[in-house]
Amino acid sequence: MLDNLSDSPTKPHILIVGGGFAGLQCVKQLAEADVDITLTDQHNYHLFQPLLYQVATAALSPADIAAPIRRILRNQQNVRVVMATLLGADLQAKLAHFKSGDVPYDYLILASGVTHSYFGRDDWAPLAPGLKSIDDALEIRRRVLLAYEAAEWEADAAARQADLTFIVVGGGPTGVELAGALKEIAAQTVPKDFRNIDTATAKVVLVEAADRLLGSFPEKLGIRALQDLQQMGVEVRLNSLVTHIQSGGITIGTEFLDAENIIWAAGVRGSEIAENLGVELDKQGRVVVSADLSIAGFPDTYVIGDLAHVTDKDSGQQVPGVAQAAIQMGEYVAKEIRRKLGEDTQNKPFTYSDRGSMATIGRNRAVATIAGRHFTGFFAWLIWGVVHIFPLVNFRRKLAVLFSWVWSYFSRSKNVRLITGEARIKVKKPFGVVSNDDDKPS
Amino acid sequence: MLDNLSDSPTKPHILIVGGGFAGLQCVKQLAEADVDITLTDQHNYHLFQPLLYQVATAALSPADIAAPIRRILRNQQNVRVVMATLLGADLQAKLAHFKSGDVPYDYLILASGVTHSYFGRDDWAPLAPGLKSIDDALEIRRRVLLAYEAAEWEADAAARQADLTFIVVGGGPTGVELAGALKEIAAQTVPKDFRNIDTATAKVVLVEAADRLLGSFPEKLGIRALQDLQQMGVEVRLNSLVTHIQSGGITIGTEFLDAENIIWAAGVRGSEIAENLGVELDKQGRVVVSADLSIAGFPDTYVIGDLAHVTDKDSGQQVPGVAQAAIQMGEYVAKEIRRKLGEDTQNKPFTYSDRGSMATIGRNRAVATIAGRHFTGFFAWLIWGVVHIFPLVNFRRKLAVLFSWVWSYFSRSKNVRLITGEARIKVKKPFGVVSNDDDKPS
Repeated sequence: MLDNLSDSPTKPHILIVGGGFAGLQCVKQLAEADVDITLTDQHNYHLFQPLLYQVATAALSPADIAAPIRRILRNQQNVRVVMATLLGADLQAKLAHFKSGDVPYDYLILASGVTHSYFGRDDWAPLAPGLKSIDDALEIRRRVLLAYEAAEWEADAAARQADLTFIVVGGGPTGVELAGALKEIAAQTVPKDFRNIDTATAKVVLVEAADRLLGSFPEKLGIRALQDLQQMGVEVRLNSLVTHIQSGGITIGTEFLDAENIIWAAGVRGSEIAENLGVELDKQGRVVVSADLSIAGFPDTYVIGDLAHVTDKDSGQQVPGVAQAAIQMGEYVAKEIRRKLGEDTQNKPFTYSDRGSMATIGRNRAVATIAGRHFTGFFAWLIWGVVHIFPLVNFRRKLAVLFSWVWSYFSRSKNVRLITGEARIKVKKPFGVVSNDDDKPS
Repeated sequence: MLDNLSDSPTKPHILIVGGGFAGLQCVKQLAEADVDITLTDQHNYHLFQPLLYQVATAALSPADIAAPIRRILRNQQNVRVVMATLLGADLQAKLAHFKSGDVPYDYLILASGVTHSYFGRDDWAPLAPGLKSIDDALEIRRRVLLAYEAAEWEADAAARQADLTFIVVGGGPTGVELAGALKEIAAQTVPKDFRNIDTATAKVVLVEAADRLLGSFPEKLGIRALQDLQQMGVEVRLNSLVTHIQSGGITIGTEFLDAENIIWAAGVRGSEIAENLGVELDKQGRVVVSADLSIAGFPDTYVIGDLAHVTDKDSGQQVPGVAQAAIQMGEYVAKEIRRKLGEDTQNKPFTYSDRGSMATIGRNRAVATIAGRHFTGFFAWLIWGVVHIFPLVNFRRKLAVLFSWVWSYFSRSKNVRLITGEARIKVKKPFGVVSNDDDKPS
């Protein structure tokens, strides 16, 4: 226990910051080690991030894809879970700084991931929320659903079209998946629910600065994703750099697009903690680590998961910020620590084994590359589903998500269309109203 | 459509405010009538309120017990749904006031329910949240789960016990159900998840001003509920009037109870709109209505559901604020309006048919009175489950809730233990920390 750390200094104390794929995997791989582990996270849940866009688009409930970290680790006796945010660390003195005080450690493993990057324009954040946590997803869901509510009562045609315009900035997997799901809502889920608006006229625009979608995928699949989205009715703007975002729309070069709904899926940067460590960062604020994932000069401090900038020794390429890489890094570092503690394993540099990548675009549409082979359409979509059901935290969640998906597939419904939090719609000129604001009692 | 109201003044316009049990039932019973209905609600969802405490105690997800109102009514063509909050109405001129302007109507049906009443101490609201909406339930869930997180890192014994003390004020059905569920979490759900705290020591206190629980139930069942709760380890305080609430505890007479978690289930009052109408209200701010549920002097203005103060002509008793009564009032007023529009039905005063009441206390424990017969224990608990599954909005939700319940029953788990929203724990003296705040970088 934490309070025993000073009493029993014989067991090495391993502090792991972040309960995502990397941190959690590392903890699990140390289950048999004779160590005291502390796992901290700012949330109480482990999130299955690849399905987060389905929470944002009202297809799944948060509990379907997130589980309390301490529940997952309840049977592992050498770990305690603390809900806290790391503020900084003295890597030399081996002290981690939290708001409540300093925690000493023998090994520090940073796995706190990345956050949205607005490329220096943090004032865009409230106008164009990103998608990293459950709270982000609920905020996006709230805005999307409120937009339809506002449009339904809006008699002003231009204001109504702006309500029904959804702009997704960033054509990576998250952007592609969000754009597809938003179009599905408009075209399949809600048409019959409204009386005044034709929801099929809702405009979904996917904006990407580069000349193709899914930049980290093979080019062929980027082209297929573009075709699929266009067939579904998504307007894709390639070579389009967003130069300004304001309430009510975005600017691309000299063009202004009216839109009440803007979602940011364009960039990430290392979590804030990295800046407070005084170590080498890359341009995206990720920590540059050695071949064994430790920070140069601090062999007992590791960085794993999305926060790590690591070059794969085989391919010479930077290891991508994906779940598979995070899990492999967590495994690797757990092994490294076990080796340092006396286990007889070889000391090899980290290598990334790319098991493929995939993105879903819509009903019966996905793209996937697995072991060098490419898949598209219905078959890729099926593979996507299978691959994303299995890693869910427990059998109960697998069943619940499978049930939701099968149900939605046949009913074309989205089951979680609840507006929670602030729920006030903004209407310029409401239908059926005989006088304006000025006469109103407030 | 709303904008057609002025164009086609031939169809009567029925404005229904509130999509709870009463309002929704009224809309449905007017499905065949040649009218234009507008249903407004401040939320976009219809909530199955009797299961709301299960969202607050992490057993069910919000989407299990709430569905978009417009989805429920998608196939009823004579109704439009508007998400808006009624601010007031000119009953003489038949104009309803909304923030966006005035809406004219021929019939007004107020079904906006009740809200928490702190008996004039509205400053207690942030300290002791009540349970009426999904947002309320998520706030209570957040506080309960954070309390355990704080306790786990808290080395100060008194502060830890306060973290683990949950006080529920009010011994009606909601208070009884909440207290039982909170004790179940402590005793069955989370024990293995924590290392520093023995969650079984968590204290749940149910405070009731009267000399018995479940005042609206037969006395025998109130006594049984008391026994059941005590057997489960809940501390029940009868004849205990809360005289003060502050951050960190409550005062009962001269006694102060330390508690970081206080939930208000003690009183309700009519929703705010009632005060703006200039009509007769009872002490709880409910609208006093005539035998036909209309407001005296305004025969085309009805009040139904919890907001109505109505005396049953058969029993001479006030009709209770329960779902069954709300549904019956909705049906009755729909029939009244159809009669006024020419349908051939009799004009009789409203009578309430009491089909019984029930409350669940915990695993295998409930109390129920149905058609004059009393049930307790396992059998009452089974009846409770059956009765609460069937009215859920659609087959999908019935299945999902049934699945959750069966799963939880065998696993003794609560599946929705997610902390969303503000997630910072307050720790007086954390375990395993070597220095205090003053030395910290912020």
